[in-house]
Amino acid sequence: MRILIDVMSGDNAPLELIRGAVMAKEEYPSLSIAIVGCEETINDVVEAEGISLDGIEVIPSVSVIGMEDKALSVVRDKKDSSMSVGLQKLAAGEGDAFVSAGNTGALIAGATLLVRRIRGIRRAGIATVLPFPTPVLLMDCGANLEVLPEDLEQFAFMGSLYMEKIYGLESPRVGLLNNGTEYNKGLPLQVATYERLTKSDVNFVGNVEGKTLPFDSCDVAVTDGFTGNLVLKVIEGMGKFFGGALKDLFHSTVTTKLSGLMVKGRLQEFKKKMDSSEHGGAPLLGISKPVIKAHGSSDAKAIKNAVHQAMTFVSTEINYDIAEWATAFEEKLKNEAAEKAAEPTAETK
Amino acid sequence: MRILIDVMSGDNAPLELIRGAVMAKEEYPSLSIAIVGCEETINDVVEAEGISLDGIEVIPSVSVIGMEDKALSVVRDKKDSSMSVGLQKLAAGEGDAFVSAGNTGALIAGATLLVRRIRGIRRAGIATVLPFPTPVLLMDCGANLEVLPEDLEQFAFMGSLYMEKIYGLESPRVGLLNNGTEYNKGLPLQVATYERLTKSDVNFVGNVEGKTLPFDSCDVAVTDGFTGNLVLKVIEGMGKFFGGALKDLFHSTVTTKLSGLMVKGRLQEFKKKMDSSEHGGAPLLGISKPVIKAHGSSDAKAIKNAVHQAMTFVSTEINYDIAEWATAFEEKLKNEAAEKAAEPTAETK
Repeated sequence: MRILIDVMSGDNAPLELIRGAVMAKEEYPSLSIAIVGCEETINDVVEAEGISLDGIEVIPSVSVIGMEDKALSVVRDKKDSSMSVGLQKLAAGEGDAFVSAGNTGALIAGATLLVRRIRGIRRAGIATVLPFPTPVLLMDCGANLEVLPEDLEQFAFMGSLYMEKIYGLESPRVGLLNNGTEYNKGLPLQVATYERLTKSDVNFVGNVEGKTLPFDSCDVAVTDGFTGNLVLKVIEGMGKFFGGALKDLFHSTVTTKLSGLMVKGRLQEFKKKMDSSEHGGAPLLGISKPVIKAHGSSDAKAIKNAVHQAMTFVSTEINYDIAEWATAFEEKLKNEAAEKAAEPTAETK
Repeated sequence: MRILIDVMSGDNAPLELIRGAVMAKEEYPSLSIAIVGCEETINDVVEAEGISLDGIEVIPSVSVIGMEDKALSVVRDKKDSSMSVGLQKLAAGEGDAFVSAGNTGALIAGATLLVRRIRGIRRAGIATVLPFPTPVLLMDCGANLEVLPEDLEQFAFMGSLYMEKIYGLESPRVGLLNNGTEYNKGLPLQVATYERLTKSDVNFVGNVEGKTLPFDSCDVAVTDGFTGNLVLKVIEGMGKFFGGALKDLFHSTVTTKLSGLMVKGRLQEFKKKMDSSEHGGAPLLGISKPVIKAHGSSDAKAIKNAVHQAMTFVSTEINYDIAEWATAFEEKLKNEAAEKAAEPTAETK
């Protein structure tokens, strides 16, 4: 198995990305790892930091896609970027999975246009595991701002399969993120999706509200990319906010500092549980080969975890199952359309 | 000034609601307070609990609108409910403001149909103050799932005015809740709203993301009711989640319990700051008379705070300013439509 890593993208590139690749190689010696990046930059960093790239291949690239770059730059003016080159190599079969901490929009565009979607999958989505005591896969987190009920049904299946294969859940509970639990809640999109999911292959547990997400209400929460992105970022912001409040709580006086020391162990335990990098990155589900979006602020350990996640993604062969299901789903949609066309219209009734 | 309180609705009705009314009367002796509810029930509770209703009027009602009741029950089969009677009295001028902890959908429907919107206001919205160190007014929190850019512009103005009058902010910063800060982010609704807000009367600071909401990024965050409701509930859920985690942190061993005691004062201070009931309830902005939606779980103190909020709402005469602005806004929309109609079409160009 061979994992490709974009070491030029992300807030801590290239150092932490290179370090992450080295950590992964140390932990999984039999794994073939190739890092994609500017050779000169990589050599400089490696030399300055005394890092050994033993057993790690370097695939050269020229430019870098920044956060301000347009999504389509990955297939236009920045085809020689680390992200684009990595995706091209993945598409060409020179790797089994690709990890990048770069521009999300560009990664989705590049994955869709260069690596392509699985046949029958209408939209690829970003799936993020929310690090609650019962982890929840939230999908879509921003790849598709506007979706149809059939897209959400596909997200539900892919997300469910991911939680089954990667987290070992027997029958993941799929919830539809909504503004209430009653079946008729939400916009027309949610009402129609509720109906579809009721008749679908997933273990649909109905609508879930934001307030129950942290409390074991479902294993997969499906939603459109606009809502998903907002919800994800609110959760991120709230985590940061409470983390800051906790720090303030313990750092004011000698007494409170002492108090902090007394719960230090438990505090670290909690922080580790809530550390999203422990869950690796966010997989783009629906792309024909595994592409993992690592968090922009990923450090070496987060990258190593993302590599491990990519390995599991490859070895569990999730994409084969998705492809098989998607073919049947396409057939189902065709039948639905045919049935609808055959229905007597108001005139002929 | 006369405030009407629905004492039959909410999780803790009628006891805590009656207690809240009594607390408010004690704190504001010159205020006229009327509670709406079933006389027999009120008498039973008052007797059993030894509460004195001195100086508080009781307006009799028959039925109660429950959480499972349809919104329109307030004007159909439950016209004799505490909520409906209260709104009718408000509309008839027998009160200056109305406080209810009941069914949100019914309260909005009732307020809109019985008390009516301010002339020129297209939609009334629920505004909730998020209890961050810099409080943020989030609007709409669920009254209107689908809105137009001009509705969001009205929310922006009303929310801004509210924060100016009630929180004493000089020029409240209005943000558009979005999935990124760039001007072209979001769905067509957000893109068009961004453009409108740039040219509007409010102090528009651009798009704001969920992750910066707790960190002083704006004073008013406008959004559609679907997104606003989800975001509000995620924030609620995260607060509960971290509250629980904090409890666990301190309640496991003797050492951690001791540690908890050492930060108890600061912890309570933080909890008080984060207690949304300190901010009263959520005003329905755009209704011709102040209607305050208290949280369903409100206790006596929260009701007293909601009464105080209603008093401030009345005395600052926000609705006069909204009415004046809305008349001008209607004119602006007419001019926009006329300009658009006068534009040369592709054919005539």
